[in-house]
Amino acid sequence: MTVQNLPTVRIVEVGPRDGLQNIRDYIPTSTKLELIRRLKETGLGTIELTSIVSPRIIPQLADSRDVLGDEGIRRMGGKDLRFPVLVPTVRALDIAVQYGVREIAVFISATEGFSKANINCSVEQGIERARNIASLALKSNIAVRGYVSCLFLDPYDGPTQPASVLRCVKELLDAGCYEVSLGDTLGVASPSNVRSLISFLFDNDIPREKLAGHFHDTYGQAAANVWEAYNCGLRVFDSSIAGLGGCPFAPGAKGNVATEDLVYMFHNAGINTGVDLSKLVDTGVWISEQLTKTTGSRAGIGRVARECN
Amino acid sequence: MTVQNLPTVRIVEVGPRDGLQNIRDYIPTSTKLELIRRLKETGLGTIELTSIVSPRIIPQLADSRDVLGDEGIRRMGGKDLRFPVLVPTVRALDIAVQYGVREIAVFISATEGFSKANINCSVEQGIERARNIASLALKSNIAVRGYVSCLFLDPYDGPTQPASVLRCVKELLDAGCYEVSLGDTLGVASPSNVRSLISFLFDNDIPREKLAGHFHDTYGQAAANVWEAYNCGLRVFDSSIAGLGGCPFAPGAKGNVATEDLVYMFHNAGINTGVDLSKLVDTGVWISEQLTKTTGSRAGIGRVARECN
Repeated sequence: MTVQNLPTVRIVEVGPRDGLQNIRDYIPTSTKLELIRRLKETGLGTIELTSIVSPRIIPQLADSRDVLGDEGIRRMGGKDLRFPVLVPTVRALDIAVQYGVREIAVFISATEGFSKANINCSVEQGIERARNIASLALKSNIAVRGYVSCLFLDPYDGPTQPASVLRCVKELLDAGCYEVSLGDTLGVASPSNVRSLISFLFDNDIPREKLAGHFHDTYGQAAANVWEAYNCGLRVFDSSIAGLGGCPFAPGAKGNVATEDLVYMFHNAGINTGVDLSKLVDTGVWISEQLTKTTGSRAGIGRVARECN
Repeated sequence: MTVQNLPTVRIVEVGPRDGLQNIRDYIPTSTKLELIRRLKETGLGTIELTSIVSPRIIPQLADSRDVLGDEGIRRMGGKDLRFPVLVPTVRALDIAVQYGVREIAVFISATEGFSKANINCSVEQGIERARNIASLALKSNIAVRGYVSCLFLDPYDGPTQPASVLRCVKELLDAGCYEVSLGDTLGVASPSNVRSLISFLFDNDIPREKLAGHFHDTYGQAAANVWEAYNCGLRVFDSSIAGLGGCPFAPGAKGNVATEDLVYMFHNAGINTGVDLSKLVDTGVWISEQLTKTTGSRAGIGRVARECN
């Protein structure tokens, strides 16, 4: 099977933001910068750097300005390496502009309960806010990516209506997002749910190439969900080195699907991701050591175990 | 989606054998018996009880006769509850017969290196041995299930030839096995590999209903592999409560796919397994506590976390 003839998958590494935000012990900025540098070395083309958010809300990302202001990081970004930054408010966008950020991500929930807990507003107000941020960003030639969270279940409200997801996706695309990442924030979906929702979006004229998949592994379904979404036609997936992650506002939710496990899966299928799996596994082991955690990547554990034997 | 109209999946719970065999600290027989009893209560229709193997080779299963001789276990088995027992030798079959075992499993490797390490003979000799055991068992009206291991990779020899797998499957079916379980012993396959091998077997006239899937989660691909195999047409899957497992002769290999995660996946798709997920999660938590291990089931962790919040 030749890699060249197959569609290429783009991976959006969200470890430095989504992966780290829920870790209680403060991680030195230098470790975060080193993580970004190592991730870049693996060949990843998109790395979400941080979130410009109040330290009161997410203490771990209190150093977002230091990350964005780092000379090494500024030199690294460019045409072939995208560094999106999560921007929840207009004020955060102003900061992003000051720091020369070229791509941002905006964030809405498809459900009221999580919207209230996460960004302290209704779904409607969240959409309005995201539209406003996107409009201002585009005027400054900043690319905008969108996230819709709680795709299948809201921790407070229960099951999500597909129509709510569709509405959020449409609003974000209308607002100028070049792509919308579909987030199973609680990690509750199985492949059948993923296929059903994606089919519903396609049936309602959402183009395949505008969607990305963002899966968490709470119930051990994340890799299967990515594979199903790939088979539905999606080609962009968010993932987190070493499977880091979880959400401060979604009790019980576990980490993102591990980047190592995804790259392993795609490479086995002859699908090019542009990422060096060996370097990725090393990076996963390295950050897990820094955090004195066991890596959440099974591929990482597998590799390490095999090397030990 | 109505459950009745969809094909039913049969789960073969291998926790008491494949799950426990690699655990170093000796587990009391009473704990093993209690595990089997609790698994039965979840509605599982097939539970592999143990392996009649030399304590020198697998010390953990040194009490196989005590398990088979237990009055409670003997009373439990029947038409609706199958209790296969792994039988590697003719001598072990004699013991199985003495204990009134009604179903056995025989085991061969598709590759030489693992065959040598695991059952101390060549693939050819392994096939001969399995044929012999199966033939004797069938004469005693004992049903025989077959396992083929190292489906994709041998820890000593490298990649497995699909033709070797095909040959092993054919030999086991010819020998009278009612079903052959395809084992990715090292847990290295991804869904694309699974589809490719199953298609090859189908193309060579192996009937869909004679195959089962047995996946390990070393590289985080097991649930995705089960789903892919299901979509290829397989309807029987081996799994292990709490994702217990690993193989003493396959360095680095991790546990079986967790039964909880599979049941969660199938139930979300409206596919009936006959298993009560709540009781299953409780059983996974219970056995993990007994072994002072963290459960390897993500669904189990997810459930426990949600209940704590």
